[in-house]
Amino acid sequence: MPRIEIIYFSSYGHTARQAQAVLEGAQSAGEARLWSITEDGIVPDGFWTEADRADGLIFGSPTYMAGVAWQFKRFADESSKRWFDRKWENKLAGGFTNSASVVGDKGDTLNYMRTFAGQHGMLWAPLNQLPANAMGNGPVDRNWVGGSAGAMAISPADASPEQAPRSGDLTSAFDYGAHVAATAGRFSA
Amino acid sequence: MPRIEIIYFSSYGHTARQAQAVLEGAQSAGEARLWSITEDGIVPDGFWTEADRADGLIFGSPTYMAGVAWQFKRFADESSKRWFDRKWENKLAGGFTNSASVVGDKGDTLNYMRTFAGQHGMLWAPLNQLPANAMGNGPVDRNWVGGSAGAMAISPADASPEQAPRSGDLTSAFDYGAHVAATAGRFSA
Amino acid sequence: MPRIEIIYFSSYGHTARQAQAVLEGAQSAGEARLWSITEDGIVPDGFWTEADRADGLIFGSPTYMAGVAWQFKRFADESSKRWFDRKWENKLAGGFTNSASVVGDKGDTLNYMRTFAGQHGMLWAPLNQLPANAMGNGPVDRNWVGGSAGAMAISPADASPEQAPRSGDLTSAFDYGAHVAATAGRFSA
Amino acid sequence: MPRIEIIYFSSYGHTARQAQAVLEGAQSAGEARLWSITEDGIVPDGFWTEADRADGLIFGSPTYMAGVAWQFKRFADESSKRWFDRKWENKLAGGFTNSASVVGDKGDTLNYMRTFAGQHGMLWAPLNQLPANAMGNGPVDRNWVGGSAGAMAISPADASPEQAPRSGDLTSAFDYGAHVAATAGRFSA
Repeated sequence: MPRIEIIYFSSYGHTARQAQAVLEGAQSAGEARLWSITEDGIVPDGFWTEADRADGLIFGSPTYMAGVAWQFKRFADESSKRWFDRKWENKLAGGFTNSASVVGDKGDTLNYMRTFAGQHGMLWAPLNQLPANAMGNGPVDRNWVGGSAGAMAISPADASPEQAPRSGDLTSAFDYGAHVAATAGRFSA
Repeated sequence: MPRIEIIYFSSYGHTARQAQAVLEGAQSAGEARLWSITEDGIVPDGFWTEADRADGLIFGSPTYMAGVAWQFKRFADESSKRWFDRKWENKLAGGFTNSASVVGDKGDTLNYMRTFAGQHGMLWAPLNQLPANAMGNGPVDRNWVGGSAGAMAISPADASPEQAPRSGDLTSAFDYGAHVAATAGRFSA
Repeated sequence: MPRIEIIYFSSYGHTARQAQAVLEGAQSAGEARLWSITEDGIVPDGFWTEADRADGLIFGSPTYMAGVAWQFKRFADESSKRWFDRKWENKLAGGFTNSASVVGDKGDTLNYMRTFAGQHGMLWAPLNQLPANAMGNGPVDRNWVGGSAGAMAISPADASPEQAPRSGDLTSAFDYGAHVAATAGRFSA
Repeated sequence: MPRIEIIYFSSYGHTARQAQAVLEGAQSAGEARLWSITEDGIVPDGFWTEADRADGLIFGSPTYMAGVAWQFKRFADESSKRWFDRKWENKLAGGFTNSASVVGDKGDTLNYMRTFAGQHGMLWAPLNQLPANAMGNGPVDRNWVGGSAGAMAISPADASPEQAPRSGDLTSAFDYGAHVAATAGRFSA
């Protein structure tokens, strides 16, 4: 069974719901756990050891001010020792993000995660879901948001975590988690 | 009066409608003209001379396969002589793009245009429109698409150029054209 | 006289030297001040008030793990109130970064700063220096590093802040500071 | 044996030398072939069939005006039918680029290739070579150029294809080709 560790930051709870969907997807095809970065940018105890043993890592953060939240970036900076020791090379990586606006520069956030994973020598697993881009499509459709690098979600500024992300984004997150785990399984076999 | 030259490529007509809205906006605050790149990536006669005299240039292309259409890139590559001679340095630049999908990697296209303009030493004028990102917002609202670097539009895959871009995207394009022209006016004064 | 505020983070002192060169350049064409973000990501007292009154802001950070240092990102996230109130719209923005490696994904850092500035509605001033890219060029030549979006510097991993950034990178930083201030002067006139 | 198809554009011959090194590396760990895009952006006969059967694709282009050459982009746009039919999903992808300047926005080119591959649902294999970033390092050292997303090379503006890319960049290209092929082998097993 491939082992996937999902590390993310969420402030208001929307990204946490997206993370939960990614988790459930990953668990449908492997072992997976969630690790939540604190408001101070601190990584939970035990994460580094498990990350070093994992087959794949999935990164998650809301998009704030054109990129990952600073708390996520603090984690990324702290991983520099792993980078130097090549602890994560050849593992699989993926990412997800959420923002209030439809585009909201979410692509910049995923591009960042991808370059970060590339520095570690990790393979990047993209979303691999065709967009639902006909006139009749909407937030209930998988990948209506139309991402490609990883899973994206939209949580309007006045929506509670119960109201958003909406079903299409959660399905996209679930299927992405399953895809990353299944891909890690092909590799670790 | 500031002079703005708008150079764009459009294959099916959706981006052409967006370009028209940018034009009308720019004309509300300055002199402006549209230049359409051909299907072979050829720039119309007269463009280069006018571009060298302009106060600002606005670039437009659909997002195809994660970036500007090849026809637009051919124009960009052809501008290398201008780059070397610094013909466009300190002019103002802006950009717009359209795609079928909601996100559709449009941000990558605008980021490309921005780096391209930066190589030329041009100042980049972003969209400067807050996103309409509440639950009640939709395609009729200005910048519901939620871009920041330039003007974005969504034209669903089954929508004719009469049906899309929709009104919010066209308003966004108009206001962006006006903003670029007004900003060029502040500079050329 | 245009007023430029330069806000940056530096951990080991190399980026601080680059910041000093940007400052001196900016002071050659306007009023300018340096603001140093703390190791905890805290912005110095007085910065926000001065930033709101400035004609231009210049952002600086080393490139760590594929982007700005988390301390810089904390500042960026804290600026979200300014974003919402459009306090910085139509100001001029620029950026600089330093890393140990030659490329070292410094472009990703500047692209981030540019998108961040774009969200604020700020105009972006690129480096506007042709690269020194002949076989005989080296670290003593201005823009040998070959950046376009903003000022870049290379500080090899075993170089002290006295040894790097090297003279070409410092000249590039100085000239960029002067360019941003002069450009802000054109605008504020 | 994993099968790798390398498709690239080169105008002056420098990128062709880099492509040759990638080829030889890939052949050290699998079957590999080179496909050269013409000056008109036309893909050689037979490419599409072989690409559909390959385990991995490697993309190559010089960096011109902030991105891939238009000829490469024409190929990318032509691949849209493959995108729609998901012909390349779950294959491995990699990329390389060359420019005259040290940084020269080569990162933007590789980021483009990566987003393009992501749209196809392909996994991205980064360079996975630590940078040679001490004061004593230079162009003869592997990854002195300091890339992470794929293989980078510097060919100064006055260097013939015999003179550049230099040995460190060619070693980096060879090792990257070998890495992509070996990684594809892990997958196809």
